Amino acid sequence: MTTDALVTTDAARTYAMDRAHVFHSWVAQDLITPLVITAAQGSYVWDGDGRRLLDLSSQLVNTNIGHQHPKVVAAIQEQAGRLCTVAPQHANDQRSEAARLIAELAPDGMEKVFFTNGGAEAIENAVRMARLHTGRVKVLAQYRSYHGGTSTAINLTGDPRRWANDYGSAGVVHFFGPFLYRSAFHATTEQEECERALEHLEHLIRFEGPDTIAAIVLESIPGTAGIMVPPPGYLRGVREICDRYGIIYIADEVMAGFGRTGAWFAFEHFDVVPDLITFAKGVNSGYVPLGGVVISEEIAATFGTRAYPGGLTYSGHPLACSAAVATIGAMHDEGIVENAARLGETVLGPGLRALAEKHPSIGEVRGLGVFWALDLVSDRETKEPVAPYGGTSPVMRELVAACLAGGVLPFTNYHRLHVVPPCTATPEELAEGLAVLDAALDVVDAAVSAG
Amino acid sequence: MTTDALVTTDAARTYAMDRAHVFHSWVAQDLITPLVITAAQGSYVWDGDGRRLLDLSSQLVNTNIGHQHPKVVAAIQEQAGRLCTVAPQHANDQRSEAARLIAELAPDGMEKVFFTNGGAEAIENAVRMARLHTGRVKVLAQYRSYHGGTSTAINLTGDPRRWANDYGSAGVVHFFGPFLYRSAFHATTEQEECERALEHLEHLIRFEGPDTIAAIVLESIPGTAGIMVPPPGYLRGVREICDRYGIIYIADEVMAGFGRTGAWFAFEHFDVVPDLITFAKGVNSGYVPLGGVVISEEIAATFGTRAYPGGLTYSGHPLACSAAVATIGAMHDEGIVENAARLGETVLGPGLRALAEKHPSIGEVRGLGVFWALDLVSDRETKEPVAPYGGTSPVMRELVAACLAGGVLPFTNYHRLHVVPPCTATPEELAEGLAVLDAALDVVDAAVSAG
Ligand SMILES: Cc1ncc(COP(=O)(O)O)c(C=O)c1O
Ligand SMILES: Cc1ncc(COP(=O)(O)O)c(C=O)c1O
Repeated sequence: MTTDALVTTDAARTYAMDRAHVFHSWVAQDLITPLVITAAQGSYVWDGDGRRLLDLSSQLVNTNIGHQHPKVVAAIQEQAGRLCTVAPQHANDQRSEAARLIAELAPDGMEKVFFTNGGAEAIENAVRMARLHTGRVKVLAQYRSYHGGTSTAINLTGDPRRWANDYGSAGVVHFFGPFLYRSAFHATTEQEECERALEHLEHLIRFEGPDTIAAIVLESIPGTAGIMVPPPGYLRGVREICDRYGIIYIADEVMAGFGRTGAWFAFEHFDVVPDLITFAKGVNSGYVPLGGVVISEEIAATFGTRAYPGGLTYSGHPLACSAAVATIGAMHDEGIVENAARLGETVLGPGLRALAEKHPSIGEVRGLGVFWALDLVSDRETKEPVAPYGGTSPVMRELVAACLAGGVLPFTNYHRLHVVPPCTATPEELAEGLAVLDAALDVVDAAVSAG
Repeated sequence: MTTDALVTTDAARTYAMDRAHVFHSWVAQDLITPLVITAAQGSYVWDGDGRRLLDLSSQLVNTNIGHQHPKVVAAIQEQAGRLCTVAPQHANDQRSEAARLIAELAPDGMEKVFFTNGGAEAIENAVRMARLHTGRVKVLAQYRSYHGGTSTAINLTGDPRRWANDYGSAGVVHFFGPFLYRSAFHATTEQEECERALEHLEHLIRFEGPDTIAAIVLESIPGTAGIMVPPPGYLRGVREICDRYGIIYIADEVMAGFGRTGAWFAFEHFDVVPDLITFAKGVNSGYVPLGGVVISEEIAATFGTRAYPGGLTYSGHPLACSAAVATIGAMHDEGIVENAARLGETVLGPGLRALAEKHPSIGEVRGLGVFWALDLVSDRETKEPVAPYGGTSPVMRELVAACLAGGVLPFTNYHRLHVVPPCTATPEELAEGLAVLDAALDVVDAAVSAG
């Protein structure tokens, strides 16, 4: 496809109308300059000037299958022509098939799927199920986490975006997860960090009152908060604690699921089975809004003869489900999850570690699959971040500008650069991206050593 | 289109997989027998046996433009081939255009649109905006209302579905709206009901503490709760009270908006301008999940240089927005809003009132446009409902069965039958539907007089 063919819209008008009429998520409306995106294909997007950018963000880490995958596009087009919408109380072939395929991917004993429009609603409903199943109210979540923008989801979130939404929300308690690089536990080894993090969690539970706690919500690998891969035994330890106290284990796989880590679900790396799984994003790569909860038989049975008191107009939307059916099918057929694993092992892991050897501003490289973070610091000894918690800084803005100038669309959060391309990327594309990052990180090194 | 051509799926398999894997909204999972829907066109859907049903439910009162409108289907197919998904931080032509068109429909001084996936998230964000704009926390909502399934939305809801979700949610207070037929105010005329309802609201505000109240959330015409058209001066009175105390007026137009009442927004019937408008459903007839908030300039300005602390991955989803652009365009071009108004005045109003003259079980007929409720009673004197608040009854189940047997897909809630066809229905289709309701109501009359 040529660049010219892709500049199909009047980008100036798009920009002007955006500024006049679109209210954007998470930002001060007058302080932004949105990039116009006019087209996308595979690992690339095109901006309003017809410039091609390698999408190392996967938008909001959702286009796991890449942009405009032909099989998914065709499925949406076919289903649109056939049947766009059916209310949740009825049955529909695309919804049935999507649920069957998702249940097939989940561990044995998790057979039912409740569909939502996105991740936040998935979390809201998982918490509702856990509360009603246990008869308890309190829910535990990690600091350094993101679970969505609706009331319960944002209160579970352990990130500064919660602060402005916190009206003393009843029943949410936060704890620290394992993160050796910035340990809350004065640990010096992964194993020590793991043991102390589990001890911290169990202590907290005993002091909160185990019988008051409905659920623990955990991103299997915290995503937006920094892609902290937990040490090997951590999730198994959480599972054991949950079993000990009758607490529901909710695995939030909204960002980490559906191939991102080189597995269908990130918890598979840790040999553990949760009670509820929340998903969204990768399930259909966000081509049509879709999320949901996979439910253990035990919890589903709670709502066998007792009404489940939750729902939404577009639960199990046929068009969204048709995109999920096609996405999962293509991921199976084309070995896309395996590709993500391989890219992590052979390209991104080695490539980013090589960058770290070269660039003193890289404090740590973390990740797996196509799910990586560079923790950027002004001093490797003190680990001082190059931007404050919850904020940005001139050097981070320069980094973003250098990436864009080099033809890469980056994902940054506070003092971190996340490298989160589609699972379908090629080694050549990622090599191209790593070269751009290499040059852009020179800018950070320079700013840091000057400042 | 023939019936045979529309039975394109294996309905038995759809049903079996639904029962095995789909967890449904709002119900006890083992006590339902979902209807398989295999196809739809205009005012009709087809079930798993190839039977055609006149859709007097518009699914969940969302297919305002009817099923499979060719212009909307074509727009989705074209956009799917062009660009399915773009993250909210960027700009995109479909999002810009949808926002522009929606702002154009809204009152002057409401220029910005925040997009969500559905109605509940719209409410969550409207409340967030109102709280941060005013610096106050409490939100007032009506008993007999529905605002969605997420935490704040379900707690604002004044319907039994809230009960199982109510953990003493901080800051929500309920009040009674005007509803002469079942007056909370011992009123005997519409005007008296209006005055007393406003007096009740203002009393309650003064005793809650006006300076503690961020917003009042009101369905312009309460929908699921019974389609109670407010008396002429009520919404203007609410607006005045809001102005008096610095309270934000949020008009929930999720169900009533986009043509349903024979106007673009239902508040237009009452000559009033809210501060925030929540919408979903009719904006694109639910062909792709979409909702949002239209924002007054004053409230938008609060987030000019201060970050708005809310968002979601699919805010302003291009595919959903393309469906909105096409839907609004077709509604303009084809006079669909005017058609809904005309159907109310010339077909549904007269037709349903004629049914009420014939059927003693009809206690009251309420509505306008294509938004009507029959309040079904076992005794016109006592107004005893034929099913309890929050429940169903054998006679309501018989009514549903009789509608289906007659070829009509109905919408019922507790003791009410709602007649909510697409805005695109023809007088002939509705005459056919009214005849089926006529016969089905004989069943209710008989059960009521027997019981
Ligand atoms: C782990 C996790 N959970 C939940 C969410 C919320 O999903 P959504 O934005 O679709 O509501 C996100 C979004 O980034 C996420 O990363
Ligand atoms: C008035 C009103 N508000 C909000 C909602 C919630 O919308 P959704 O189901 O899309 O979350 C509904 C749904 O029926 C509604 O009727």
